[in-house]
Order: sequence, then C-alpha cells, then structure tokens
Amino acid sequence: MSESLAHKAAALDAADELAGARKLFALDETVYLDGNSLGALPAHVPARVADVVTRQWGELRIRSWDESGWWTAPERIGDRIAPLVGAGPGQVVVGDSTSVNVFKAVVGAVRLCGDDSRTDILVDATTFPTDGYIAESAARLTGKRLVPLAPADVPAALGPRTAVALLNHVDYRTGRLHDLPSLTAAIHEAGALAVWDLCHTAGALPVGLDDHGVDLAVGCTYKYLNGGPGSPAYLYVAERHQEAFDSPLPGWNSHIDPFAMTADFTPASGAVRGRVGTPDILSMLALEAALDVWDGVSIDSVRAKSLALTDFFLECVESYVPGGLVTSLTPSAHASRGSQVALSCADAPSVMEKLIARGVVGDLRRPDVLRFGFTPLYVGFGDTERAAAALAEVLAA
Amino acid sequence: MSESLAHKAAALDAADELAGARKLFALDETVYLDGNSLGALPAHVPARVADVVTRQWGELRIRSWDESGWWTAPERIGDRIAPLVGAGPGQVVVGDSTSVNVFKAVVGAVRLCGDDSRTDILVDATTFPTDGYIAESAARLTGKRLVPLAPADVPAALGPRTAVALLNHVDYRTGRLHDLPSLTAAIHEAGALAVWDLCHTAGALPVGLDDHGVDLAVGCTYKYLNGGPGSPAYLYVAERHQEAFDSPLPGWNSHIDPFAMTADFTPASGAVRGRVGTPDILSMLALEAALDVWDGVSIDSVRAKSLALTDFFLECVESYVPGGLVTSLTPSAHASRGSQVALSCADAPSVMEKLIARGVVGDLRRPDVLRFGFTPLYVGFGDTERAAAALAEVLAA
Repeated sequence: MSESLAHKAAALDAADELAGARKLFALDETVYLDGNSLGALPAHVPARVADVVTRQWGELRIRSWDESGWWTAPERIGDRIAPLVGAGPGQVVVGDSTSVNVFKAVVGAVRLCGDDSRTDILVDATTFPTDGYIAESAARLTGKRLVPLAPADVPAALGPRTAVALLNHVDYRTGRLHDLPSLTAAIHEAGALAVWDLCHTAGALPVGLDDHGVDLAVGCTYKYLNGGPGSPAYLYVAERHQEAFDSPLPGWNSHIDPFAMTADFTPASGAVRGRVGTPDILSMLALEAALDVWDGVSIDSVRAKSLALTDFFLECVESYVPGGLVTSLTPSAHASRGSQVALSCADAPSVMEKLIARGVVGDLRRPDVLRFGFTPLYVGFGDTERAAAALAEVLAA
Repeated sequence: MSESLAHKAAALDAADELAGARKLFALDETVYLDGNSLGALPAHVPARVADVVTRQWGELRIRSWDESGWWTAPERIGDRIAPLVGAGPGQVVVGDSTSVNVFKAVVGAVRLCGDDSRTDILVDATTFPTDGYIAESAARLTGKRLVPLAPADVPAALGPRTAVALLNHVDYRTGRLHDLPSLTAAIHEAGALAVWDLCHTAGALPVGLDDHGVDLAVGCTYKYLNGGPGSPAYLYVAERHQEAFDSPLPGWNSHIDPFAMTADFTPASGAVRGRVGTPDILSMLALEAALDVWDGVSIDSVRAKSLALTDFFLECVESYVPGGLVTSLTPSAHASRGSQVALSCADAPSVMEKLIARGVVGDLRRPDVLRFGFTPLYVGFGDTERAAAALAEVLAA
C-alpha cells in the first residue's frame, strides 16, 4: 500500500539480528500472527518426534524410561525453560496443563501462607478464565474467599486478609503487560504470596522470576515457546518455598522414592515435588526438541524485536486503516505492552475470516477483538506490513 | 527345554484366533512381557503421529483445532475406549494423568454423595500408591477421613459412614483381579459410591462399567491399550451422575461455552465436564491411532486368550523351574486373575536383569517380585514357553 512503509519494513528486516531464526521453523508464505495461541512448528521437531516414537518407544520400549531419559524429562525440560523466565535451575518442572498447575500453585500458596486469618485469594478478574475458575475451586477446597478484581485495583485491595494473589503477566485479550516487579513487591509488603501466570510472556520478554522474588508461577509452552498443541505446562516454585510446598496433587511421581511404592507419601525435594503422574512423553519430548531454537538467543533481543514489531504494526495500521475503523486495545506504552496487538472493530468475526483467506492468520476473541501475536523468532517486519495492508483492504472492501 | 510344551505352544499358536493381531505391532524377536507397564508400538502409529506433527501442526497450525478435530479429541477418543470397558457413549473422556483423574473422581464422588454424616473414604491399601496418595489429598481437602484397608476387608468395613470406596480392579503387584460386580453392589448397598481404577484391566478383560452400575472410574491408556508412554488417562462418569458431577478441576475446557471466556463458570453437560485444560494433542492423537488395533476385536476373546496365556505360563514355569525357586503371587482361580503373572524369588533384581539380557522383558517390583504381563494382541504361546524356559535357565545358572 505504501512504498515508504514497505521500504522501512525491508530496512528493518535487513537490520534484524534475529532474522535468521525464521529458517528454524516450518513456515510458508502465510503471515502467521497466531503464535500467541499456537506457536509454529520448529523444522527439526518432526524428526525428533519420529525418533521418540519409532526408536525410543517402538524399539527400546520400557527401557526408554531410563535409557532415553524419559523419567527425568519433567525436571530436565524445566531447567531448559528456567532461563527464559529468569529462574535459576531446580525450580521449574514441566507437566500437566496450565489449569492443573494453577490448582497446584494456588492451593500450594494458600498452604505456604498458612495464616488462617488471611482469608482472601485475589484474582485478576480480567484473566484468562481458566485461572479464575480454578482459583475459585482452590478457594472452595481450602476454605478461602475468592476476590476477583481488576489488576489495577490489586494494590489497594491488598491487606492483612490477603493470603494469595493470582495474576496474569499479560492479559490474553488486550495484550496489556502488568508490572510484575511492583505488584509482587506490593503483595509481599502486605504479607501475601504472589502467583503469576506467564502464558503470554514466556518466550516473548524477560520475566525475572528470581530477581523479583515471585513465589510461584505457571505457564504454558505452546505459545511463544512453540512446544506444540497442548504441550505440557510448567510450575515454578521458588527455592525458598520448596521444602514447605505441599501439593494438592501428590501423585507417585512427586514421591521421594516412587519405585519403593510405599503406602505412605513422603515428598521429593526440589522442583520434582511439583510432578504428579506419569508424564506424557510424546508431547513432552516434542517440547524439549522445540526448545532448541532458543540456543544462543537472548531474551532481551527478543523483547527489543517484539516491541519494534508491535510498534511498526501500530504505525502501519495507523497509516493504512482509515480512522475510526479499528481501535487498539493494546497499550501504547512499552512498559505496558506484551507481544500482541488487539484491535477492536465492527464485524470482527467476518474481518478475521477474510484476513485468514488472504493468508494473514490472527485470531478472534468474541465479540469484537482481533488479536495479532508477534513471535520475534519467526515474524518479520515485511510480514507485519503485509498484515496491516491486508487488514486495510478487508476493512475497505 | 521340553519338546512337549514347545509342541503344545505351537498348537496353541496355530489355533489362536488373535494370532494375526501381532503383525499390527512393531515387534522384534524380543519376548515382550511388559505390556502391563508400557504397551508395544502399533506399527501404523509413527505415520499417524508424523502427520499430526508435520501437516496438522506444521501446515494447518491453529486451524487444526477445528479442521483436524483437535478440540473434540478428548470425548471422541473417550468414546473409542468406552466399549472396551463396557461403557455406553458419552461417559468417558480422555485427558490428564491417571493421578489427576483419581483426584477428579474421588472429590467428585464425595460431592455426589453429599451426605456430611458419611465421613469415610475407603481405599485399597494394596493399591498402586498414587491412588492412595491422591485419595488422601482428596480426603484432606473435602474434610473426610481416609480408611486404607485390604480389598477383602471392604465389605465388612462398609457402613453408614462410608461416602466413597476407591478400588483397583487388578492389583498392580500381584495381578489379583477383584470382584467388581459384587464389590460395587456391596458399596451401593451401604449407600456409598464406587470408584474403580482400571489401569490393569482395560484392554485385557471385560469390565462392564455400565452393567455393574459403577459410579466413576479412571484408567491409563499406555498399558494394554498401547497408547504410548504417558499417554493421557480417562475418566468415566456414569450418565446418571453427570448432571450433578462437580469437578474439583473446572478448567476452561469443561465450560459449557469455552470461547465465550466468561468470568463465571457454567459447566458443560456430559463427559466433557471431566475435561480440564488444553489437551496434549500429540500424546492424545497417538493414542487415538493406537486404538485402531481394536477394530473388530472382541474383548471376550482377548480375555479367553489372556487366561490361556497365563495358565500356560504357570504350567511351563511349574514344569521347568525346580520347586521352591519361585512362588506365584497370582491367584490360580481365573475369577481372581488379571492378565499378568507375578512370581517372587530370591535375587529378583538380578534375575530380571538376566532375563532381559536373554530377550525376555518383564519388570521388577521391589523387593522380590518379577512381573510378567501378557498382552493377548501380541504375545503368543511360543513366547510364553520361551519366557518360562529362560527363567528356568537363569535360575539354574
């Protein structure tokens, strides 16, 4: 649409130090802006999965629990994710869905709090809904009260009755980034524990779990970590809490000696305590393979490119789309922006359908939100300009 | 070792109506008697998994949630498992580990009971330990008391204080089959709910969940169902309980309209209510492919062959192994035998190691139990005779 923005895109792509990462993924000419829902396939993963299925399962069979490292995969892969979220080793374990990990984390945090006079679990009322549903269940089972409220209202609501606050780092709908350091500090100031959901930040920007003293955290691995559809989630329990962490799902994999198969439960030490049952090896080892794309990548450079991409997308949209046809729900301030842009518009379902037909894949959040996720490892500035141009064409038609 | 037993094996193999199923699996000359821990790879699964990874994830990406049937996989695959455990459609849903499903089932059963004067959860004290650990957690979170006891003592212990009984259909260690119909009837007679763990029976013998009025059940899919390492487990909730089933893990996938993403939780109807978070698609669709081996197979014929195999193994062991060197822990009565034979012996770890070195793969349960699982779809009578002969050689050495 515009010579100058297309030229600018080309210049930005030429200067992009992460541009080479795109070739690590199985991508075609589609502009794929849905990596905040399902990350693209890293090109080497099919061969690795084939080896897991054909050789490890098919030929070694039961021996693979030891010989192929299946048994220790949850903590080994946790340690691969740890540096991406600013965690030292031994604090992250992979397995189960995000929802199940939210349950472990919230019940675990209530028990770590241990103070019966602290009756309240605060939860981000605008959060991805599963967190609220699961937190409600955790509150019900632990005799606490769930208090849903906007993240901006959390600091004022914190007090001597607060046991735990469960917050999202980035809002799944708007892409708003919440201030993890200051909110965590405020929660601690009130004597409560902070549980963070990192689904929309891990792999897109630095999190700094250890630096900011987060107590527990969870996240999925199929968005910016490209682990594959429904790949297992992870649980972070800060080292200082591990010996007191009391999981509500003490499956045999969290036992100190699982193969002793004793009737009495004695929990393992460390991150392993967050495990539950037998890990889903195919999904888990696909994730492990997918994490290879992070070798040598700095999460700070990912963040810098992410902001440049979303800035440029907003610039292109502003330039190409006639005023008033779309409204950005994503904060313009970098400090409040994740790695997606959310635009509201009329007839959003039809607009997204037409965009997809033109090879620009984002997604829809009912009723009127178009979401465009920017995965810095495989989205370029040219893609970004083409997406904005296609959006303008669809809206003009 | 014995001409006559080798001949008998050959005759039994020649008459085996299931003998043709072996070619459906990727097997070598190993005698694989560990299908009660990890089922062998069905030969067509690698190609199916490759398609899921390369085409469904890699090319269709996010579109596969609809176009490749990812979203409905948990209930669709549940309906594939249902006939193998005697359940009508719409009552089985796949996802999460067995441990997580035990948690849903036991908490769900306590809530279905709903009678505060019923304070006790009875649990098989000899069960696979994760069931006991998770039941203890469920009891703690619901204010109940866990009562571990031998399955034989359950009928006498049932009474007006019993809320729920959680039992294993087959004991993982000894291979003892418990009487599901009569125990379920006794539990109901006492006014309590019956939760059964089918890990060691699904795919090996008829279960008859509907016929016997079981309330809830769980099971894994990586043993006799050959779903792959850590493939997702399943939850059965009898149709009559579904509208009142109140899951302790109400993730967004169990919502009546997940993509409405409302803050309030309204549960879906039917088996879907047992879902939690985003399903682990790679592991789940490997399982779906693996279930193809059951097409046209009668579970009654599987049971008949299973008993013939374990009978014949016991006969060969008795003939080949000098008296006193091994003791069978597996009941001789068919009505009390699952699809494995457990033998205790001195130096069991070393014996199993040597057996594996000779190409006979069973496993060990500390301190002194050798387990041999017989999967009727791919184990033959010749395999069985060779396993007993190898055991005799090892013990004689």
